[in-house]
Amino acid sequence: MSTILIGYYSRTGNTKAMAQEIGRGAQEAGATVDVKPVEKILVESLTEYHAIVLGSPDYYGSMAAQVKKLLDDSVKFHGQLAGKVGGGFSSSANIGGGNETTILSIVQALLVHGMVVPGVAIGDHYGPVSINAPDERVLRQCRNYGQVIAKLAAAVAHMAK
Amino acid sequence: MSTILIGYYSRTGNTKAMAQEIGRGAQEAGATVDVKPVEKILVESLTEYHAIVLGSPDYYGSMAAQVKKLLDDSVKFHGQLAGKVGGGFSSSANIGGGNETTILSIVQALLVHGMVVPGVAIGDHYGPVSINAPDERVLRQCRNYGQVIAKLAAAVAHMAK
Amino acid sequence: MSTILIGYYSRTGNTKAMAQEIGRGAQEAGATVDVKPVEKILVESLTEYHAIVLGSPDYYGSMAAQVKKLLDDSVKFHGQLAGKVGGGFSSSANIGGGNETTILSIVQALLVHGMVVPGVAIGDHYGPVSINAPDERVLRQCRNYGQVIAKLAAAVAHMAK
Amino acid sequence: MSTILIGYYSRTGNTKAMAQEIGRGAQEAGATVDVKPVEKILVESLTEYHAIVLGSPDYYGSMAAQVKKLLDDSVKFHGQLAGKVGGGFSSSANIGGGNETTILSIVQALLVHGMVVPGVAIGDHYGPVSINAPDERVLRQCRNYGQVIAKLAAAVAHMAK
Repeated sequence: MSTILIGYYSRTGNTKAMAQEIGRGAQEAGATVDVKPVEKILVESLTEYHAIVLGSPDYYGSMAAQVKKLLDDSVKFHGQLAGKVGGGFSSSANIGGGNETTILSIVQALLVHGMVVPGVAIGDHYGPVSINAPDERVLRQCRNYGQVIAKLAAAVAHMAK
Repeated sequence: MSTILIGYYSRTGNTKAMAQEIGRGAQEAGATVDVKPVEKILVESLTEYHAIVLGSPDYYGSMAAQVKKLLDDSVKFHGQLAGKVGGGFSSSANIGGGNETTILSIVQALLVHGMVVPGVAIGDHYGPVSINAPDERVLRQCRNYGQVIAKLAAAVAHMAK
Repeated sequence: MSTILIGYYSRTGNTKAMAQEIGRGAQEAGATVDVKPVEKILVESLTEYHAIVLGSPDYYGSMAAQVKKLLDDSVKFHGQLAGKVGGGFSSSANIGGGNETTILSIVQALLVHGMVVPGVAIGDHYGPVSINAPDERVLRQCRNYGQVIAKLAAAVAHMAK
Repeated sequence: MSTILIGYYSRTGNTKAMAQEIGRGAQEAGATVDVKPVEKILVESLTEYHAIVLGSPDYYGSMAAQVKKLLDDSVKFHGQLAGKVGGGFSSSANIGGGNETTILSIVQALLVHGMVVPGVAIGDHYGPVSINAPDERVLRQCRNYGQVIAKLAAAVAHMAK
């Protein structure tokens, strides 16, 4: 049984709705899931999970400062997240507005931690993206992404350090 | 005469030293320069400059949350920075440690603002990078970058809105 | 009067249609424009333009090999494009499918050349993106982008080397 | 036992030397390894491996057109590489010259394929980078990266599709 943290920053509720749907997908695939706003995540708790997925609205093409702060603070545990599974998602107001680069700013941070990041062959490749409120397409992407993360977390949990 | 803001976040002094040298280069090219830590930059002041250059240590592959906060707050003036010149620089502890992606996180934010960003054909292409304390090579890159920014700011200042 | 090259690779015609509309916008802003498939662009001709804009379908998150080949071959003229204006655009089959990273692969190449790249404050920030065939929204983005490029090319043409 | 393909494009021999050292690390960790220039890789063979690692010199901030061509051609097998392990490495002539963005262009392509990509907590985070010929530091990074890839490939090989 793998445990997954889905952290998000959300003012309009769009990114939060995505987080919840990713959580649903991960649960369907057998994981235990915590869905939390980044402001309520204790940085000490990060090491307890098999997978960490972070979501942010697209603010100037990368994650919101609030999400970045959590990652900056996580330097205290640098090395201890290596080999865990990571992922990202984002929501934006525009199609070419920075959704992909926002996810990649999260993915890059997780790679720096030595985490393992999956892509998605069919759908939103780097992680789910929403334009404004998540519609059916986005929710489907989110549910599928939760399953991808959960399966990978289960497989990687057995990896020798 | 163009005016340039060089903002930085620095704990060790490495990014600050780079900021000062970029400032020197820009002054040599005829610009009026303010070099300031991001914590002391009033977001209202951003619209007063012809060019804005931001530097950050490489924290998990993108700009520090402190720098990101300034950019997130700048949304109040979205549209008013369009056509101004922008640039970025960063310092890291490692060669493959995220210096380039840190600069690009800054560059992408400035492009979202509609700013104009120059590359550098000979040297650090996306903006100056330092591994630990800036050495002679880095300072030369910084001085040159300051000149590139200043020349471009002067040219673009005459651009019709 | 500035001269602008708009190069594209297109199999379905979507990226070509975007190229033509960017060309239209640039002409409206007073530029002389050549719109050409990358296979027909002589690498020697790149130095003749004030601005170079390249478009590609999104193939695995970056520009098509055919577009990359032109850029790789342009190394013969490295340094001679510095200070010129550059830009990118792309078309994809999916919303989160790599459009932004495709444009950024082009933008990064042009920054390595020392070129000057504008963002867009209102609209597709890094350059125009289309999901499948360009619709009204996309064509408007393209026309506007052509104008942004043309104005910047005119301003930068007067920049002292 | 996992099987790993390490593909590279190399004119000076620098990227080739990196490929061979990554191969050595992967073999030490128990994998069967093929190290091949991309020109000699049959696109049909990609589906046979548990992991695919691609290396390129940094040409204008992303992978060489020769490497990109292999990835573009791999669209015939889109979906069949999902869940496999992927990685990238690069060599450049300059510190701030595009090494990181070159690796990320590879990593993004592998994520689009739905592959699983590991970062490195201590060392070159996105994959090994060399400035000119690989020195002791680089070779150590490469050997370690080969081990990271091999361990992950073994863990992921058991993942249910």
